[in-house]
Amino acid sequence: MPGPVQSIERAAAILRLIARSSGRLGVGEIATALGLARGTTHGLLRTLHGVGFVEQDEASGKYQLGAALLHLGTSYLDVNELRSRAINWADALAARSGEAVRIGTLLDGQILIVHHVFRPDDTLQTLDVGALLPLHCTALGKVLLAYDVSAAGGLGDGPLEAFTRRTIVLPKALARTVAAVREVGWAVEVEEMTIGEAGIAAPIRGHGGLVVGAIGISGPVERVCDTKGQPNASLVTFVRDAARAVSRDLGASRW
Amino acid sequence: MPGPVQSIERAAAILRLIARSSGRLGVGEIATALGLARGTTHGLLRTLHGVGFVEQDEASGKYQLGAALLHLGTSYLDVNELRSRAINWADALAARSGEAVRIGTLLDGQILIVHHVFRPDDTLQTLDVGALLPLHCTALGKVLLAYDVSAAGGLGDGPLEAFTRRTIVLPKALARTVAAVREVGWAVEVEEMTIGEAGIAAPIRGHGGLVVGAIGISGPVERVCDTKGQPNASLVTFVRDAARAVSRDLGASRW
Repeated sequence: MPGPVQSIERAAAILRLIARSSGRLGVGEIATALGLARGTTHGLLRTLHGVGFVEQDEASGKYQLGAALLHLGTSYLDVNELRSRAINWADALAARSGEAVRIGTLLDGQILIVHHVFRPDDTLQTLDVGALLPLHCTALGKVLLAYDVSAAGGLGDGPLEAFTRRTIVLPKALARTVAAVREVGWAVEVEEMTIGEAGIAAPIRGHGGLVVGAIGISGPVERVCDTKGQPNASLVTFVRDAARAVSRDLGASRW
Repeated sequence: MPGPVQSIERAAAILRLIARSSGRLGVGEIATALGLARGTTHGLLRTLHGVGFVEQDEASGKYQLGAALLHLGTSYLDVNELRSRAINWADALAARSGEAVRIGTLLDGQILIVHHVFRPDDTLQTLDVGALLPLHCTALGKVLLAYDVSAAGGLGDGPLEAFTRRTIVLPKALARTVAAVREVGWAVEVEEMTIGEAGIAAPIRGHGGLVVGAIGISGPVERVCDTKGQPNASLVTFVRDAARAVSRDLGASRW
């Protein structure tokens, strides 16, 4: 069996690099970052430009991601079974809880948000679909860490990024938290990513009980938690009910 | 100068094919559609799977688009200058007109929607960002046809697809409509794509006056048009004002 096609792997690495840089990169910057010859990099970029996966900024000559990727990304969502099965339950959860609902799945050691229902009020909110969130400081992420061995292995041994004073940065402390999530079947996060915000999440299971994603709510800490700082018990029930309902729709008969 | 990298072009063709099929395709279907050997196709798909651009459906063994594309697609939007400059003007246009606002740019002979503001009421609406719409039966598309020679050339000589009884299907008739759009500087569409719906759009220009996209409103024909079936003059003014404002922000000094 032949090995993977190197030029496609390199092309994918270029696209990821540009996405991660959240802006534009020049040929030289890309060549250096990926350890490729400048001529090779240029050839790959010209081909990516030809298929609409990158665009070249006229003023700077630097490369940015191309319009063809947007259509491919939304086409992915159109056939995503987790998302399509979860849409109605997510709406119901937002209505019952009064908070924003997000559904995420694992991608490259982070959570990819595949669905987002805004908090049902008139506050200004931005759509998180397509965003990548860290695992260690979100309720969705803790759920995915609890049930996916590869995700937990990918965090490494060093201290994790601190977003607030309350972020769990020590891998050992995170491992204990994650073990507790497995024990109770849901996860909570209180001001670990954003001051004033808290979240609750539960696993979504597919065929055979395999965890394929997580569903959770997030909102102001004073609404998500009680006066003792514990997650509101009714909200936990709402989230777990929604997770079970989506799991049943995905064919996970036991949950 | 070396030519384009064939395997990347083939990989892009596979992704487009799967997106167009709006679902899942088997190795054999992809090989046949693209005229590739089955072994070649399989090698390309395995590499695309390795980089997260396709996923394999467990039950059928067929391929669908992968999660990595969603993140790349939204990363494209994050740096899209047309969209970022237009967001506030689009919100203002939706508020003034009371109708849904969409911003589109040309991609592969269609309109790629890069921004969508819902009609400011409580009706159920689905987000069109990332969707591809036809050029010949939308106001946005007529604007892009009017100012982009390559787009007009791509429509071919045969009759165009009829979405309703009012769709302009004859290339000659469309050419006359498009010439009129160039004359007045805005376009209208009345029940040419969807019964009961109408739209108005105007061009967005970038540096040097080049048309880089279009902004438009769409809504029920009885609100967008007057009793004689003509587009409401105030709405036309609102759309043209918004298009000029975005163009100025993009550096098109004369408009």
